[in-house]
Amino acid sequence: MNFTASQIAELVSGTVEGNTSVEVNRLSKIEEGTEGSLSFLANPKYTSYLYTTNASITLVSDAFVAEKEFKTTLIRVADPYEAFSKLLKHYNQIKQQLPSGIAQTALVSEDARVGKSVFIGDFTKVGANTTLEDHVVVHPQAFIGNNVSIGANTVIHTGARVLDDTIIGKNCVIHNNAVIGADGFGWAPNDNGSYDKVPQTGNVILGDHVDIGANTTIDRATLGATKIGTGVKLDNLIQIGHNVEIGDHTVIAAQTGIAGSTKIGTHCQIGGQVGISGHLTIGNRVGIQAKSGILKNIKDDSKVMGYPAFDYTTFNKAYVHFRNLHTHITDLQTLKKKLDHD
Amino acid sequence: MNFTASQIAELVSGTVEGNTSVEVNRLSKIEEGTEGSLSFLANPKYTSYLYTTNASITLVSDAFVAEKEFKTTLIRVADPYEAFSKLLKHYNQIKQQLPSGIAQTALVSEDARVGKSVFIGDFTKVGANTTLEDHVVVHPQAFIGNNVSIGANTVIHTGARVLDDTIIGKNCVIHNNAVIGADGFGWAPNDNGSYDKVPQTGNVILGDHVDIGANTTIDRATLGATKIGTGVKLDNLIQIGHNVEIGDHTVIAAQTGIAGSTKIGTHCQIGGQVGISGHLTIGNRVGIQAKSGILKNIKDDSKVMGYPAFDYTTFNKAYVHFRNLHTHITDLQTLKKKLDHD
Amino acid sequence: MNFTASQIAELVSGTVEGNTSVEVNRLSKIEEGTEGSLSFLANPKYTSYLYTTNASITLVSDAFVAEKEFKTTLIRVADPYEAFSKLLKHYNQIKQQLPSGIAQTALVSEDARVGKSVFIGDFTKVGANTTLEDHVVVHPQAFIGNNVSIGANTVIHTGARVLDDTIIGKNCVIHNNAVIGADGFGWAPNDNGSYDKVPQTGNVILGDHVDIGANTTIDRATLGATKIGTGVKLDNLIQIGHNVEIGDHTVIAAQTGIAGSTKIGTHCQIGGQVGISGHLTIGNRVGIQAKSGILKNIKDDSKVMGYPAFDYTTFNKAYVHFRNLHTHITDLQTLKKKLDHD
Repeated sequence: MNFTASQIAELVSGTVEGNTSVEVNRLSKIEEGTEGSLSFLANPKYTSYLYTTNASITLVSDAFVAEKEFKTTLIRVADPYEAFSKLLKHYNQIKQQLPSGIAQTALVSEDARVGKSVFIGDFTKVGANTTLEDHVVVHPQAFIGNNVSIGANTVIHTGARVLDDTIIGKNCVIHNNAVIGADGFGWAPNDNGSYDKVPQTGNVILGDHVDIGANTTIDRATLGATKIGTGVKLDNLIQIGHNVEIGDHTVIAAQTGIAGSTKIGTHCQIGGQVGISGHLTIGNRVGIQAKSGILKNIKDDSKVMGYPAFDYTTFNKAYVHFRNLHTHITDLQTLKKKLDHD
Repeated sequence: MNFTASQIAELVSGTVEGNTSVEVNRLSKIEEGTEGSLSFLANPKYTSYLYTTNASITLVSDAFVAEKEFKTTLIRVADPYEAFSKLLKHYNQIKQQLPSGIAQTALVSEDARVGKSVFIGDFTKVGANTTLEDHVVVHPQAFIGNNVSIGANTVIHTGARVLDDTIIGKNCVIHNNAVIGADGFGWAPNDNGSYDKVPQTGNVILGDHVDIGANTTIDRATLGATKIGTGVKLDNLIQIGHNVEIGDHTVIAAQTGIAGSTKIGTHCQIGGQVGISGHLTIGNRVGIQAKSGILKNIKDDSKVMGYPAFDYTTFNKAYVHFRNLHTHITDLQTLKKKLDHD
Repeated sequence: MNFTASQIAELVSGTVEGNTSVEVNRLSKIEEGTEGSLSFLANPKYTSYLYTTNASITLVSDAFVAEKEFKTTLIRVADPYEAFSKLLKHYNQIKQQLPSGIAQTALVSEDARVGKSVFIGDFTKVGANTTLEDHVVVHPQAFIGNNVSIGANTVIHTGARVLDDTIIGKNCVIHNNAVIGADGFGWAPNDNGSYDKVPQTGNVILGDHVDIGANTTIDRATLGATKIGTGVKLDNLIQIGHNVEIGDHTVIAAQTGIAGSTKIGTHCQIGGQVGISGHLTIGNRVGIQAKSGILKNIKDDSKVMGYPAFDYTTFNKAYVHFRNLHTHITDLQTLKKKLDHD
C-alpha cells in the first residue's frame, strides 16, 4: 500500500517540506533508505546520513536545520522517533487486517467445517472432514488435506502443503512452501539389498503460536504423532523427522535437521545448520551452537558446540590449540629429537 | 478416515468396553496415544501406560484385568498384537487405494498420453508430448512439463515440479514441492568478473522404485542426464547437482548435497547434511557419517567421517584426543619447559 | 521438442546412416548417451564409445570407418564438433524463445501494470499495484504479490513465490519453488520464556542478472531491504536472512545459509553448505570453502575454511596433524613417561 507525504504528515501531525505527493510503501533506517521508503532522524549522530539517504521521506524534528543539500522530502514533527513508532504500529495494524471470504477459484470440500471470517485464497484446495476455525487465513495456491484441523487465527501462506490428519493450534503461521505431514523416511532393508517402505501411519500435531518457516519440512509419525510444542519457532529450510517431539518455546534457526524419534526439551535455542541424530533426548534450556552435530543425549541447561558436539567452553579451548596445531606438533617433534639424542 | 470403536471391534472380532461411538483415525504406541488414535497393549511391561494413555481406543487381551481407572475405550481381543497388525494392514490397503480420474480444473495437454486408471488432481498441469503410464497418480497443484515420461504406479505429490524431458520409472514417489529437472548451476566467469550461463541441455532420469523427499531438488544435466538408480531413496531437502549419478539402492538422509558430475556407487548409506564435492567417484557400499564433507574419491566398502572426511575409526581416535587437546598441549608445554631448564 | 535424424541431418548438412526416423530431444556426451539423445564423435580417443553408446544419433566425420557393430544411427558431417556446436546453439535459441500471452486461468489484478510480450501461465496470480516489464515470463502456478516490480526479460519459474513489495531487476531468473520476501525470523524474548514477533516491515531488492535457485528462501528486511546485488548467482536450497546484503557478482553454492544483517562483498565465491553468522562483514573477492562456519568478519581477498573458519592454508596444515593426532599424542605420552623416569 502506498502513502503520499501528505497522507503521512496527516497521520503524524507533521508538516511536509518537499514533494507532498512522493509515495512510500515501507519503512527503513536512514542509512539504508531506498526509493519508496520512509525513514527518520532522531539521533544527531546520524545527521550526516540525511544528506545522502535515498529514502523518499524522512521524519525530522521541528528544530532541525539543514547544513547541506539533500534529496529526501522532510516531514517535520515534534518527536521523530515517536512519530516513526506510531507509523510502525499503524503499518502492523494494516498488515494484520486479515482478509476474509472464499475465493471463487478455491475448492473447499463440502465436508469441511469452515468457521467465521475465514479467508481461503485462489487455487487453494481444502480437503474432506477438515476444520478451519474462526479467522483462519489460507492464502492462494495452498493445499490443506483431509481430516486436518486448524485453530483460530492461524495463517497458512501461499504454496504451503498441510497434509492429511495434521492438527495445527491457534495463532500459528505456516510460511510459504512448507510441507507438514509428508511421509517419513522409514525403510526396512531386504536381504537382496533393496528397501521396503515402513508405513507411516501417524500425523503431525502443532501447538499454539507455532511458526514454521518457508520450505521447512515436518514428516508425520510412523505411529502416533510428530509433535511441535506451543510457542515453538522454526526458521526456513528445517527438516523435522518422523516422531520427533519439540518442547514448548524452543527456537531453531534455518537449515537445521532433526532425525527421527528425537525428543527436544522446552526453551532450547538451537542454531542454524545443526544436525541432531535420531532417538536422542535433548534436555530443557539447552543451547546448541550453529553447525553442531549432535550424536548423544544432552542434559538440561547445557551449551554445546562441535562436530560431534561437546561442552561449549571445552570445545573453544580445544579449537584454539587446533588452529595452532602445526606449531604444537613441530614443538613435539623437536622435543622428541632432543630426547632421542640424549 | 474416521472409524468408531464399534467398527474397529467388528474388523478385529473384538468387544468394546467403553464408548462405542468414539472415533479414531490413526494408530499410535500406547505411551504416545493422543485423542483420535488407537493403540494396543500386548507386552505386560507397558501396562502402566494404559492408565495414563490419551489414545481414544486401546486393544487389550481378553484376559486383561484393570487395576486402576483409565480414560481409553477398550476393545478386548484374543491377541492384541495380531489385531493391531491386522488394522495396520487394513490402514495401508486403504491408503494404497489410489484415486483415478482427471479433475475438472486439471489442465492436460492434448498431446499427452495418459494410461489407464491415471489420476490427475485439481490445478495440476501436464505438458505436451508427456506420457503418464497406467495407475500414475499426480496430486493437485503439481506441474509436469513437456516431453516427460512417468512409469506405471508412480505417485507425484502436491506441489512437486517435474520439468521438461524428465524420465521417471515405475513405482516411484515424488514428495511435495520437490523440483526435478531445474537448470543446473553452471557459470563461466567473464574477464570483467561477471558470469555467463552455461546452457543446461540435458535431463534427469530416475529408475524404478525411487523415492524423492519433500523440497528436494535434482538439477538436469549440462549434457546428457543426471541419473538416479533403481531403488534409490532420497530424504527431504537434498540437493543433487547436474550430471550426478547415483547407483541402485543407495539411500541418502535429509539435507545432504552432492555437487555436479559426482558419481556414487550402489548400496551406499549416506547420512544427513553430508556435502560431497563435484567430479568425485564414490564406490559401492560406502558408508558416510552424517555431516561429513567429502573432498576426495572413496573406495568400495569404506566408512568415512569428518570435515574433510577420512577413515571412520581413525577419525574417532583422533577426535577423542581433540576433545582433550587443552590437556595435551599443557603437557607438551610442561615438557618443553622442563627440557629447556635441563 | 523431438527431432528426427532426417531433420537433424538437414540442419547440419549431413547424411543419415541408419534409422532416418529415430527421434532425439536432447544432447549428450557419447559415453553418456541414452535413448533419445544425440551425441558426437570428434576426438578419435573416444571411438570405442561409438560401439557401446545408447545415444539414438551420433554425429561422425565423413571419414569415419566403423570396425565393429553399433546401435546408434550415424549422421556423417565434415566436422562433427562444429556440427554439434551448431545444434547446441540452435537448441538454446529454441529454449530462449519465450512464450507470451496471459493464460486463461491466470489471475492478474486489474491494478497490475503488464508490459509488452509478457507471459503469465496457468493458475498464476499477480497482485495489485504490481509491475511486470516487457518480456517478463511468469510460469504456471507462481505467485506474485502486491506492489511487486519485475524488470524486463526476467523469468519466474513454476511454484516460485515473490511476495509483497519485492523489487526484481532485469534479466533475472527465479527458479521453481523459491520464496522471495517471506517474513524474517525475528523474535523478542519475553520474561515468561515465550517470544514475540518483531514486525518485518521491509522488502527484498534484487539487481539485474540475478539467479535464485530452486527452493531457495530470501527473507524480507525488518526495516529497509534485504539486497542481492547485480550478477549474483544463488544455487538451490540457500537461506538468506533478513537485512542481508550481497555484493555484485558474488556466487554461492547450494544449501548455504546467511544469518540476518550480514553484509557480503562483491565477487566472492562461497561454497555449498557454508553457514555465516549474523551481523558480520565479509569483504570483496573472499573465497569460503564448502561447509565452513563463519563466526567473524573476513577481510578482502581472504580464503578461509573450517568450523569455525580461519585461513585456508593454516587450516589444511592443522588438519594434516589432526588426521594423525592419535600418533602424535602417543608420542607425547611416551616422552612424558621417559622424562618422568629420568
